[in-house]
Amino acid sequence: MDHPKPQHDDAPTPETVLRRAFDPELFRTLGHRLIDQLASHLDCALHDSRMPVLPWVDPEVMANTWPPDFPERGNENLNALLGRVLDAANHLHHPAYMGHQVPGPLPAAALCDLVASFLNNSTTVYEMGASGAGMERSVVRWMAATLGFGPQAGGVLTSGGSVGNLTGLLAARELHAAKCRRKPPALLVSDQAHYSILRAVRVMGWGAAGVETVPSDPRYRLPAEALEEHQHRAEARGRTIIGVVASACSTATGAYDPLPAIADFCEAKGLWLHVDAAHGGAASLSDKYRHLIDGIQRADSVVWDAHKMLLMPALVSGVIYKRGQDAYRAFEDEASYLYERTPEEEWYNYGHRTIECTKPMNCIKAYAMLHCYGTRLFGDYVTATYDLARRFAAMLREAPGFHSATAPESNIVCFRYIPDGAGDLDLLQAAIRRRLLADGNHYIVQTHLPAGLHLRTTLINPFTRENHLAALIGAVREAGDAIQRQG
Amino acid sequence: MDHPKPQHDDAPTPETVLRRAFDPELFRTLGHRLIDQLASHLDCALHDSRMPVLPWVDPEVMANTWPPDFPERGNENLNALLGRVLDAANHLHHPAYMGHQVPGPLPAAALCDLVASFLNNSTTVYEMGASGAGMERSVVRWMAATLGFGPQAGGVLTSGGSVGNLTGLLAARELHAAKCRRKPPALLVSDQAHYSILRAVRVMGWGAAGVETVPSDPRYRLPAEALEEHQHRAEARGRTIIGVVASACSTATGAYDPLPAIADFCEAKGLWLHVDAAHGGAASLSDKYRHLIDGIQRADSVVWDAHKMLLMPALVSGVIYKRGQDAYRAFEDEASYLYERTPEEEWYNYGHRTIECTKPMNCIKAYAMLHCYGTRLFGDYVTATYDLARRFAAMLREAPGFHSATAPESNIVCFRYIPDGAGDLDLLQAAIRRRLLADGNHYIVQTHLPAGLHLRTTLINPFTRENHLAALIGAVREAGDAIQRQG
Repeated sequence: MDHPKPQHDDAPTPETVLRRAFDPELFRTLGHRLIDQLASHLDCALHDSRMPVLPWVDPEVMANTWPPDFPERGNENLNALLGRVLDAANHLHHPAYMGHQVPGPLPAAALCDLVASFLNNSTTVYEMGASGAGMERSVVRWMAATLGFGPQAGGVLTSGGSVGNLTGLLAARELHAAKCRRKPPALLVSDQAHYSILRAVRVMGWGAAGVETVPSDPRYRLPAEALEEHQHRAEARGRTIIGVVASACSTATGAYDPLPAIADFCEAKGLWLHVDAAHGGAASLSDKYRHLIDGIQRADSVVWDAHKMLLMPALVSGVIYKRGQDAYRAFEDEASYLYERTPEEEWYNYGHRTIECTKPMNCIKAYAMLHCYGTRLFGDYVTATYDLARRFAAMLREAPGFHSATAPESNIVCFRYIPDGAGDLDLLQAAIRRRLLADGNHYIVQTHLPAGLHLRTTLINPFTRENHLAALIGAVREAGDAIQRQG
Repeated sequence: MDHPKPQHDDAPTPETVLRRAFDPELFRTLGHRLIDQLASHLDCALHDSRMPVLPWVDPEVMANTWPPDFPERGNENLNALLGRVLDAANHLHHPAYMGHQVPGPLPAAALCDLVASFLNNSTTVYEMGASGAGMERSVVRWMAATLGFGPQAGGVLTSGGSVGNLTGLLAARELHAAKCRRKPPALLVSDQAHYSILRAVRVMGWGAAGVETVPSDPRYRLPAEALEEHQHRAEARGRTIIGVVASACSTATGAYDPLPAIADFCEAKGLWLHVDAAHGGAASLSDKYRHLIDGIQRADSVVWDAHKMLLMPALVSGVIYKRGQDAYRAFEDEASYLYERTPEEEWYNYGHRTIECTKPMNCIKAYAMLHCYGTRLFGDYVTATYDLARRFAAMLREAPGFHSATAPESNIVCFRYIPDGAGDLDLLQAAIRRRLLADGNHYIVQTHLPAGLHLRTTLINPFTRENHLAALIGAVREAGDAIQRQG
């Protein structure tokens, strides 16, 4: 590449191709075009009522539109390609997006991710992302203080809640290593816990028997009074309980487990308390709703996803430990080419606290958004969406044939439509949802509850209003009635 | 938020604050400004010889420049904040960046990450990122075919090589589950394997004894002929070997393990072969160097990071399985609110193959860069950097007092400076590196090898040339001699 050979065809030299790919002026042109594409897209998603939330395309058809036929020499129309990605997306910024717990993010936060990707610095090793070490520490401290933890708390930002839950549980296992050697361990887990808990338990090698499932109460909460009995059951089948996993809130229905009573139990029994607050940790920012997480500051570890109710793009999850040094327990193995000193001496090398080796600077968006918009925006947003869920539940009570699974505690609402003479209710809900998907005017999801399959909404878009919810109720009824008529 | 109360102070209503944060025109302004900031930054990093690679700041000082003092109401100067992040970065685009195996990425790939973050779609569930399912399938197929796998191969993109190695090893454990129940399992692993292998083994609950360490040969490669003896050793201490981990190439010195001989052993013994090709899988794109990974298509699982030698921003790692259905083995637990059918029927729901639940669309950058720039750019780049490492080794042979650890096989070169009368060689190398860090004109790292601490370079920047390497040799000598003089 240093000494390019004379070229006998018109093909550019490798040097020319590389220089072009890294040319600052070409980047500037592509970048400005993309910003305009995104601004227009955002405007449409927020304001153009004719735009579908999700332009449904069958998976096999979609696969064929993105074939693996990469050319030897490129076809540089990046903006056209990205335009196709924009058009095909699930438009989370659309106010009729009410599906999974992922927001249409603050657009400025996406700009922060552009910086993170462009620099490609990381917070594993201080030298590779020095400002990130400072920002990450501050975001973690702010999260810990907001949840009510004291100054000994600490932790790490990681790539997602599933890896976050695994990270917290690895610390639990490490603390109880002696116990685990005597008898295979298990955790007390509600039947409403997120599937990443069971997945983490399996990853750790405990098998499905590593979870002692506690049936939830009629409001889908973990009944603290049942914990002791289930601890005995686990012991009886040869497992030693080392901790309890609580949800704040649960994924399916958004129910908050009773943290003070669960914390009492854990303290009395010497068990680790891990709280999966991936979604609901943000209640800590709302004067009106922070009571829902009372007691969370007694947990040993907490996971809180900023890419849910803090309106960030995925992924950026906080793993917060009541005792900050617990963050290091599971990762004391050596990597001589990375570190020079002991983990505790090196708070600024975040690789000592996480499964990840190259750990991207997802702290930039969290730090910058809190700094640039302030904390109140997030608290007001939480309050507004939680309020709206309560109004939606009231609307469902008024709507003939509609039945909520439970009174909402967060901004998640599950319901069913049961018209007169309906047959298999689960099949009907699933068919209704498929119709809505094909129409594209609303995006909602579904979940299996003990009482059957329910339609499920998360009111996570800050611009969803009662008129959108009224339209959803109308669309569900229309779809359900049409399905009924067709038999 | 729907019906804002009259405000008696000048504070904006929550509605106004949110509308402003999501305003497409304000986003457009911030975005265009940022593109200009990045273009200027790139121009300086590539071309301004006065710019340091890494402007060193002490961690405690850095922490104080990013305090956790988030205001209640924001201070919206995002561009100024991001400018500070740009200034403080380790400038990977600088041709004197020769440190860890992370590139200054293709700037257009960072724009793809902007789109991924902005849309916040994911490829866990098809509905949440439909085009991503198509792109991810194609990128995985292309990676598999490029490595030499047949049409049965498949896999997944995941957030990093460490999680990728864990993912591949979980499949190995699942396949050998019966064996693992009879006796605790272990893997045969070179002493030069990446630390994420040991970490994955510990995460899986096998303890440090889950690794049977095989000492590397004088060229830092896993000696295939030693595998059988170490299998017996593991059996003798009560462990059953279920697989072998090979490196292609290793992290510290960039050595390629002899894959054909290792594959022969694994086939003869019925063991899983996992190849960590996070860095060196890209040799498959170089006509000149692809022989280094001959035999990789006989592996059961391979990890290949696109955020290393494919010039992408972190994270985007391929986990490729010889038998595509192996990808599903470890993740068959249920998540009823996500999936409707069995994993194999749902190739388009990538959550069935990964630890992640929300899995970002890191496929966009991989697909778009291969499409827009073509495959030859990457092959030429690999050839050029591997060539350059050989020239650097020749320069080191000519330079008095310099000693390479080994003849480079990839673009990683480790060496020491040993001036006449040097005392503790390890202390000297470490002191040299600290001086270089403080100067900021070169960024290199260090690694412990059996022969002692070595300075370590990865020639990963496509614009690093012999003059930069000559300057590095001069700077190392100058630093070393100065340290010697000071005693």
